[in-house]
Amino acid sequence: MEFEKVVKKRAMIRRYQKKAVEDEKIQRILNLAWKAPSAGFTQPVEFILVKDEKAKRALFEAALYQEQLLEAPIIIAVVSNTSRSTPRYGKRGREFYSVIDGAFASLIILFTCVKEGLGASFVGAFEDEKVSKVLKLPNYVRPIGLIAIGYPAEAAPKYKRISLEKLIHKNTW
Amino acid sequence: MEFEKVVKKRAMIRRYQKKAVEDEKIQRILNLAWKAPSAGFTQPVEFILVKDEKAKRALFEAALYQEQLLEAPIIIAVVSNTSRSTPRYGKRGREFYSVIDGAFASLIILFTCVKEGLGASFVGAFEDEKVSKVLKLPNYVRPIGLIAIGYPAEAAPKYKRISLEKLIHKNTW
Repeated sequence: MEFEKVVKKRAMIRRYQKKAVEDEKIQRILNLAWKAPSAGFTQPVEFILVKDEKAKRALFEAALYQEQLLEAPIIIAVVSNTSRSTPRYGKRGREFYSVIDGAFASLIILFTCVKEGLGASFVGAFEDEKVSKVLKLPNYVRPIGLIAIGYPAEAAPKYKRISLEKLIHKNTW
Repeated sequence: MEFEKVVKKRAMIRRYQKKAVEDEKIQRILNLAWKAPSAGFTQPVEFILVKDEKAKRALFEAALYQEQLLEAPIIIAVVSNTSRSTPRYGKRGREFYSVIDGAFASLIILFTCVKEGLGASFVGAFEDEKVSKVLKLPNYVRPIGLIAIGYPAEAAPKYKRISLEKLIHKNTW
């Protein structure tokens, strides 16, 4: 699929069919997410594939009861292993680059889902400590996003955006 | 260009030709970056186009003297206007979602540059206060990335990645 079409077609899809997502599709999604850029090529991002029903329910409870996490046949948790970035970048590595790098990989996942005919929803609203406990993350690994994925059972929602002209500035704010 | 090819071809390009980047290309880049997702569709991301030589030098000085900021014919500064997200999300809006949303838009810029035959480099290593001063950002606007853009004058660097298998976990870390 054309890059431009993928960008324009992407939308948060929160309802999914019961149908499982094929492992090959998940592998293709990860193959591309793996190509995400990272600060100083420190490659902090790792992926936790969650299919277990109990684990999904626990993530749902850790994430303000967002139904898509319960309904999705698979969740990809995108986490940043700051043990690869903090030694070089300290606090900025942990608090800033780890988030940017996780977001980069997450967006590729969202885009690749479009290409693969899947629906996906990025969830960033969660309690870090609860998610870390569910996923058994060591203290140097930071959860960045929980991406619910499945075959779509709803149309893409339509929203009106702020007009682009209002968001562009020349040289200064 | 195919989405997959764009993802695979993208690399940080830090040397550029003197040739200016056409306004139509910048417009097409922004048209797609505008489509980036954002937390709760709060749309905090705005863009500052920097072509002014003095401003570019000041950004270069605020960003650890990374030469690509001086050399690029244009820099797109991606900023998050937290006045649209903080009222709803408070601290997490300012410290987390604003960064994720800025990274989403930034990655679309990097990808669209590939499609447009341009080279780009995302710079996240800078002193926030200095950048804010150069760009005259109000205190509710947070700089997320400085993206140097130009026609490439170097080949894409090749790096060896950590093998993907090592980055994938099942259900828990």
